Amino acid sequence: MPSLPPAIAEERVAQARVGRLATVNAKGRPHIVPVCFALHGGRIVTAVDAKPKATTNLARLDNVRATGRASLLVDHYEEDWTRLWWVRVDGPAAVTDDDAAISTLAAKYEQYRNQRPAGPVIAIDPERWRSWIPSEP
Amino acid sequence: MPSLPPAIAEERVAQARVGRLATVNAKGRPHIVPVCFALHGGRIVTAVDAKPKATTNLARLDNVRATGRASLLVDHYEEDWTRLWWVRVDGPAAVTDDDAAISTLAAKYEQYRNQRPAGPVIAIDPERWRSWIPSEP
Repeated sequence: MPSLPPAIAEERVAQARVGRLATVNAKGRPHIVPVCFALHGGRIVTAVDAKPKATTNLARLDNVRATGRASLLVDHYEEDWTRLWWVRVDGPAAVTDDDAAISTLAAKYEQYRNQRPAGPVIAIDPERWRSWIPSEP
Repeated sequence: MPSLPPAIAEERVAQARVGRLATVNAKGRPHIVPVCFALHGGRIVTAVDAKPKATTNLARLDNVRATGRASLLVDHYEEDWTRLWWVRVDGPAAVTDDDAAISTLAAKYEQYRNQRPAGPVIAIDPERWRSWIPSEP
């Protein structure tokens, strides 16, 4: 399977403004939400922020606490399918109150500098980086 | 939690060119990939297509066969966070060889009319539609 060089995969993840976070609930069911995130000390971190959430929308936190795993996907779509790519990071995850992670998020997102997320933070420890690009025709 | 009217949520899903598919493997770990998809007879359908895949990239098929569930997320990101939205469809899922579903995918994507996917198809039976939009400031 063609893939990106690791340094380029990491750079694309670092630069992406949005990713999609997949977790699994205590019943083994999938859950997926779009998230803002940053690379912080080699981990993927994402915070519960001020975008209004219902309690049920914090399923991601319950899921990480229950199963201790998460995956983040960053991808690019356009109609020219020869230019598609994706990068996925899988690994153990934890819910933390890491204020330094929130500072890293605020450094990346002006929106977070204007309204600092209260947290908590989900941190993924990248166990595996996977990427995909199309084969040459 | 503010949400979209159901008809608008469905229309946004129908019109989206890419979604992200979350599944769970037999060990209970999350898996997530970007997918092209279509609404077909009230179901979400996505096909294994000619974009080159390694065997391991067909984890999505193994996962659906093992756990019988999938979630599809469609979302919109821009830097003005008052304009964000997402729609998620959760439900039982199955791997099928539904040629009519592939025809629906080909009707949506010119790329599939040029190179018809061989299949198989993952079909999600929407048990629950969820959506999110920001609150008014």
